[in-house]
Amino acid sequence: MSAAARARRMDETAEITVLEQSDYVSFANCGLPYHLSGEIEQRESLVLHTTGSLAATLALDVRTGSRVTSIDRAAQTVSVSAGSDTYDLSYDALLLSTGAVAVQPPIDGLDHPAVHSLRTIPDLDAVNARVDHLLARAASDRQPRAVVVGAGFIGLEAVEALVARGLRVDLVELADHVLPPLDAELAPLLADELRAHGVGLHLGVSATSVTGAGDDGSATVTLADGTVLAADVVVVNVGVRPASDLARDAGLDLGPSGAIRVDSDQRTSDPHVWAVGDAVEVLVAVTGAVGPVPLAGPANRQGRRAADSMLGRRTTPQAPVLGTAIVRVFGLTAAVTGASQASLARAGIEHEVVRIHPGHHAGYFPGAEQVHLVASFAPDGRLLGAQGVGREGVDKRIDVLATALRAGMTADDLAELELAYAPPYGSAKDPVNMLGFVAQNVLDGTMPQWHASELDTVGEETLVLDVRSVDEFEQGHLEGALNIPHTELRERVDEVRLAAAGRGISVHCASGVRSHIATRVLVAAGLDARNLSGGWLTLAAVRPDAAVRTDSAAPALAAV
Amino acid sequence: MSAAARARRMDETAEITVLEQSDYVSFANCGLPYHLSGEIEQRESLVLHTTGSLAATLALDVRTGSRVTSIDRAAQTVSVSAGSDTYDLSYDALLLSTGAVAVQPPIDGLDHPAVHSLRTIPDLDAVNARVDHLLARAASDRQPRAVVVGAGFIGLEAVEALVARGLRVDLVELADHVLPPLDAELAPLLADELRAHGVGLHLGVSATSVTGAGDDGSATVTLADGTVLAADVVVVNVGVRPASDLARDAGLDLGPSGAIRVDSDQRTSDPHVWAVGDAVEVLVAVTGAVGPVPLAGPANRQGRRAADSMLGRRTTPQAPVLGTAIVRVFGLTAAVTGASQASLARAGIEHEVVRIHPGHHAGYFPGAEQVHLVASFAPDGRLLGAQGVGREGVDKRIDVLATALRAGMTADDLAELELAYAPPYGSAKDPVNMLGFVAQNVLDGTMPQWHASELDTVGEETLVLDVRSVDEFEQGHLEGALNIPHTELRERVDEVRLAAAGRGISVHCASGVRSHIATRVLVAAGLDARNLSGGWLTLAAVRPDAAVRTDSAAPALAAV
Repeated sequence: MSAAARARRMDETAEITVLEQSDYVSFANCGLPYHLSGEIEQRESLVLHTTGSLAATLALDVRTGSRVTSIDRAAQTVSVSAGSDTYDLSYDALLLSTGAVAVQPPIDGLDHPAVHSLRTIPDLDAVNARVDHLLARAASDRQPRAVVVGAGFIGLEAVEALVARGLRVDLVELADHVLPPLDAELAPLLADELRAHGVGLHLGVSATSVTGAGDDGSATVTLADGTVLAADVVVVNVGVRPASDLARDAGLDLGPSGAIRVDSDQRTSDPHVWAVGDAVEVLVAVTGAVGPVPLAGPANRQGRRAADSMLGRRTTPQAPVLGTAIVRVFGLTAAVTGASQASLARAGIEHEVVRIHPGHHAGYFPGAEQVHLVASFAPDGRLLGAQGVGREGVDKRIDVLATALRAGMTADDLAELELAYAPPYGSAKDPVNMLGFVAQNVLDGTMPQWHASELDTVGEETLVLDVRSVDEFEQGHLEGALNIPHTELRERVDEVRLAAAGRGISVHCASGVRSHIATRVLVAAGLDARNLSGGWLTLAAVRPDAAVRTDSAAPALAAV
Repeated sequence: MSAAARARRMDETAEITVLEQSDYVSFANCGLPYHLSGEIEQRESLVLHTTGSLAATLALDVRTGSRVTSIDRAAQTVSVSAGSDTYDLSYDALLLSTGAVAVQPPIDGLDHPAVHSLRTIPDLDAVNARVDHLLARAASDRQPRAVVVGAGFIGLEAVEALVARGLRVDLVELADHVLPPLDAELAPLLADELRAHGVGLHLGVSATSVTGAGDDGSATVTLADGTVLAADVVVVNVGVRPASDLARDAGLDLGPSGAIRVDSDQRTSDPHVWAVGDAVEVLVAVTGAVGPVPLAGPANRQGRRAADSMLGRRTTPQAPVLGTAIVRVFGLTAAVTGASQASLARAGIEHEVVRIHPGHHAGYFPGAEQVHLVASFAPDGRLLGAQGVGREGVDKRIDVLATALRAGMTADDLAELELAYAPPYGSAKDPVNMLGFVAQNVLDGTMPQWHASELDTVGEETLVLDVRSVDEFEQGHLEGALNIPHTELRERVDEVRLAAAGRGISVHCASGVRSHIATRVLVAAGLDARNLSGGWLTLAAVRPDAAVRTDSAAPALAAV
């Protein structure tokens, strides 16, 4: 629809026909979970345009219930099946926006009537009807139960919606953490938020079967580890694959992922055919991967670009896709842009990782919430990717970082960004500036880092120095750690030297700020010290098992 | 303090002495209005560090109540006056961070005891004491009254704070709109918000005198237009000037504005002396102006840069300052980055202006608030500046635009930015993308514009075509406008041609979206049509006098 609308605005004389196999055009598929939850009250709110409104406003001939069954590229015609009618339609320029279809995971019994997806308005209607039915029945009965398979963006939104409707929800995810695009140190924050809202998490395990359970239409979901979950409704969202059958059958070039291959103007291997959206291949920024990236923003702009190209106008060539994405999970926001650490590792791209936990606005102004940010940088300082989780201000920082990433900015550039500061909005040193500052220190060697993933070797091979206060230390600390509050460190460097006995020193505090100062003091004293990236906050997320508590009444140091 | 802290972290051996004439170091001056309002409850929250905490954490020798009276550059010493003591201190590297002092406007009677500024903690304490006194006294009496002189950032924050405390506030501003850095079409939104909170606005007029009024310490403020305002407290904030006397007396180069001249490493004309903050000159981005820009963010980074330079480390050279700034005015946020239209006009820089009013997130998701955005672009597409006002999401868009501006991005780049979209956070076409789309259309001639400022000539020389619905038209429209809803335009083009009678056609709708389609229809029909930038929303803000209403029961078209 973006392409059709743009084409009309740019050319009043073109004959523009839109063929849609379903009964809906231009519906807000990103809004479906929010109507399921009830947050978007009116179903009609999801239908952005109708055939009538598109005809009146843009003189578009929109034909719903009209499936294109084949393309004759030589004749420049498409065959259309509409109800019992079939007819051919000729074209000068053809745009394929066939989208994606839900991936069917290898689970037995997906045809069980309790099983649904959540991609289309009919999907939504079906889940909604089932939930309405369950709630009406359950009023004086047990709490209805849902199983959601797949903890990606839509899966998490479905979980939130079903909990909002009063269901007890179990979430099953094959990867070892929720929201697989998110890096391992941030995902546990989402997992905690899900558990706090009563969601049962089943991570690192697949669902293997759905079987009939009762006459009431309920089901039993069995997991690979033998867990058996009762489910009155099952929502499966494990991703999508390009709907490129029509293109393939017409002999257009597809990539290895099955997505339609297009140039930077959205043109396919046939100069009279363009393609956009979830069905096409894109070049992924940073890693250079090529494949489908099903996101609304790029799809919309592809439509605009295709229209310009079809009309012979100047186009804005598609930039590599950053994969910027965001999700609300109850009170938390999680957002990503650019390459994750996992994808950098897979692509073999050398990088340094920075982790910080600043407030979303000035700390002295009430209501500051921590923004948990992770960013990766190339050795030359170039930003490669960033992710964030928090209750406030995450969307802003990820949007700034997505802009910086698109511009090819470096740690130096982030340090010097001039962002809007007044106490209710940010800090004189915004979290994005802080990412830049820390990255500068890491990249120029001013602040050698160690990482939570190195915990086991660090505990064995180095002295762990905890520079938090004695009170904080007593709340929980690493086994064998020496506790010297950072304010006492300068006068107690010899103690550290003695305890280290020639080993390296692995310093940490809560977030990495105090331990940065401490690390600098130790390095200046000629010691081999490194600072824990992201501090205790990151460590505790990745390794909740790591903390030991000081139960004795003795001072913390005596416990070492 | 940024410089001192950075210097210590980078060099454990340096002797670092901080000399401060007042009793406070490292206080949150941006937070002062929010303690006045009571939003920051504890005064101690504003004091970020003390001499003790700085000594313990960073081994800094911080001496408050210590005024530097002169610099002997040849001897590399400063003379310090501390109470009755005076002494000299030698330096290898000297940093001047002398800040700014409040500009005293030419108002008689500024020494009246009711008159205060709001720059320092003693200022705040004095205003707070006065307000406490007034409120205690006024409990069963009349509402206490305040006059705030100067409607800049701090003036507006002071107004908000005094209203929050229950005072009746009059605001006096010499410029013809509030927040002078804001462009004329956005400022009326703030003015409306101020009036809605009971603030009396006196714009385009100066205060000329403050005179004693009663035994209770109250005053009378007289304005140049003869208005007389009663005031129990007067807060004057009309800007600051660099506090560069010390530098001038030491023979350091100053610029024409009186600010200390520094290079991109913050070094003054003396290679052993650096300077930072409100006291120094910066290069202003876009216009190329040179002068002081008193903002917290750049000042902090200047401190960091100066420390690195003083220690001979690699520095991140200062980028031209964008002047990104933000203010909360009751429920509204106003923010700016880069050049305003007024400053572009003053600098003689050719530009096109784009004005849009999209929702801060998807319209189908509940709670979408309009973001009023204005951006200027060079003829080659380069972004020159952007401003925004709205209830939600303004800070995010201005931060993204500040990042884009720093990167030298164009309209094409904004169109292609990949920002985080889920219904609670944004739209698939984010407001920043929309700015890019509209700017592309303006710059490539697809969408010729007219501007609210041309209203008078447009009404005389062209046909005004209002493509809103009949209902909207009847709520208020321009005199002589022809109303044809955009959905009927294609079949009624001949009506337009007839009414235009060879003249140009000035099209508008509410925000510019429907009229864009309409303009394209008319241009395609060979007519000379232009679209009102920002639509009726912008027009009504700039020219609230322009609307006429249809009072007759006759259809709107009959009224033409």
